[in-house]
Amino acid sequence: MNEFSLIHRYFAPLAGENGLGLRDDAALLTPPHGKQLVITQDAMTAGVHFFNEDPADLIARKLLRVNLSDLAAKGAEPLGYLLSLLMPADTSEEWVELFAQGLEQDQKEFGMLLMGGDTSSILGPMTLSLTAIGTVDAGQMLPRSDARVGDHLYVSGTIGDAALGLKVRCDELPYDEFLLGRYLLPQPRFHVLPVTATACMDISDGLVQDAEHLAQASGVHLVIEAEKVPLSNAARHHPGLLNPQLLFTGGDDYELLFTAPPHLPGGDYTQIGYVTSGSGVTVQDAAENEIPFDRKGWQHF
Amino acid sequence: MNEFSLIHRYFAPLAGENGLGLRDDAALLTPPHGKQLVITQDAMTAGVHFFNEDPADLIARKLLRVNLSDLAAKGAEPLGYLLSLLMPADTSEEWVELFAQGLEQDQKEFGMLLMGGDTSSILGPMTLSLTAIGTVDAGQMLPRSDARVGDHLYVSGTIGDAALGLKVRCDELPYDEFLLGRYLLPQPRFHVLPVTATACMDISDGLVQDAEHLAQASGVHLVIEAEKVPLSNAARHHPGLLNPQLLFTGGDDYELLFTAPPHLPGGDYTQIGYVTSGSGVTVQDAAENEIPFDRKGWQHF
Repeated sequence: MNEFSLIHRYFAPLAGENGLGLRDDAALLTPPHGKQLVITQDAMTAGVHFFNEDPADLIARKLLRVNLSDLAAKGAEPLGYLLSLLMPADTSEEWVELFAQGLEQDQKEFGMLLMGGDTSSILGPMTLSLTAIGTVDAGQMLPRSDARVGDHLYVSGTIGDAALGLKVRCDELPYDEFLLGRYLLPQPRFHVLPVTATACMDISDGLVQDAEHLAQASGVHLVIEAEKVPLSNAARHHPGLLNPQLLFTGGDDYELLFTAPPHLPGGDYTQIGYVTSGSGVTVQDAAENEIPFDRKGWQHF
Repeated sequence: MNEFSLIHRYFAPLAGENGLGLRDDAALLTPPHGKQLVITQDAMTAGVHFFNEDPADLIARKLLRVNLSDLAAKGAEPLGYLLSLLMPADTSEEWVELFAQGLEQDQKEFGMLLMGGDTSSILGPMTLSLTAIGTVDAGQMLPRSDARVGDHLYVSGTIGDAALGLKVRCDELPYDEFLLGRYLLPQPRFHVLPVTATACMDISDGLVQDAEHLAQASGVHLVIEAEKVPLSNAARHHPGLLNPQLLFTGGDDYELLFTAPPHLPGGDYTQIGYVTSGSGVTVQDAAENEIPFDRKGWQHF
């Protein structure tokens, strides 16, 4: 493989006008009128965030989607992205082709274009870093920091599927297409947030740990009512694993955790608790007894 | 080390208002009125772009500066940056502290703030990816693609020092502070470009190879007159190495290569050739004989 022919063949077709055909030093972006930009950067490396043997197109799409999930959590619309691709020497051209196909598929699904980045070798595992750029109407970005006492607490979708999907991926659970898919291919939750939402973040490292970050940023106390946390039918097929210690701390959910005043209209979300004064997070069982957590989520070190 | 206390202690102080104190999912950027944004992303990984034993502050500053060099080449002013930091398990807190000190030093020097990013472990070498965001007056970004037949070709600074500095770093040349510094700590060339410049890029992978990229993007032929290429006094101390095959292909120069109409006023640049119709790059000696190059620059694979 030649570095420049690789870029020309597989990545230049993914670039839009902003990316200048990937033939310049940098991308040029004309900010849309009346909009602010929301910018996020997340990396993934083999052996930590994905398995080396995972299909390259799914790795590409997960990389895009974990970043898109951050944009969705801020109420932003996708615009474009930059990509650093660090490949070990034994990477095949077929891998790169499939990786680019995955990017192309999700670019179309989410309406964004490649704007720039770089490729390099690495004396180690396949490592990727992606910067996603989105837009919000000026003043409309939804922060983590504005949850108010009296708000209710909500999540989109269902919680814990990816933790179980990882067990499927590791052959610790029987094959289950839904759970495996929830681990391999997150679904960024665009157009889910109600207009009255006050604070939001995406759940990437475990519900309890991420809720603590939202509580801290807002200076409030969050109560999670465990029995209200929505679980998928596929998860309910594993009654022995319906354990908050696993499902509420496993990470890779990529669902939205948000606060809003009570009495929301129906939507793709579920009320799981409420906001009070104080700090931290309390998870309660149906009898309002606190469920303790030694480990609250994923930490990289 | 705890991931979140590390971010709080060392990186949150580097973040500005746009970075929301690194306590949100994403950065929020209000584009300055009348400006376009120039965005570039470059990664560095130990064993390829730097040595694992290099001082952490210099690694940080080189990472920032290779990206700033791209902004300078586009005529942009620095605004902010996002950082992915993938650290092997044996990384010490002292390393992180020194790394953050390097970022802080260059943030002040170049007037930019940390806006976001992420930290993770890696089952491999220290790997970093940085996205730098700059601004240009609308319509004023200097592309690679607008060199015109009849323009002259210029470079900033001196060429080949970093190739020699790498030899110093590898103990293949005696210690030379200037040359080693040119390898370890590039100098982004802001405020060097004349207003009449027509096309520009930074030289990161070798003068000849990068000139080919500029020629291709502009659809022109570039002639480089080898004897006009500026060399430093430190380089001239190694007469046995004053060889275009080394100095014009070694990479890591981070000087600007640009075209402009003849008869520029004096500045921190040197005319090294001219633009004609055709394609590709010809390097000529003083007798106008072509100097052939088997290897034209650095390729990662």
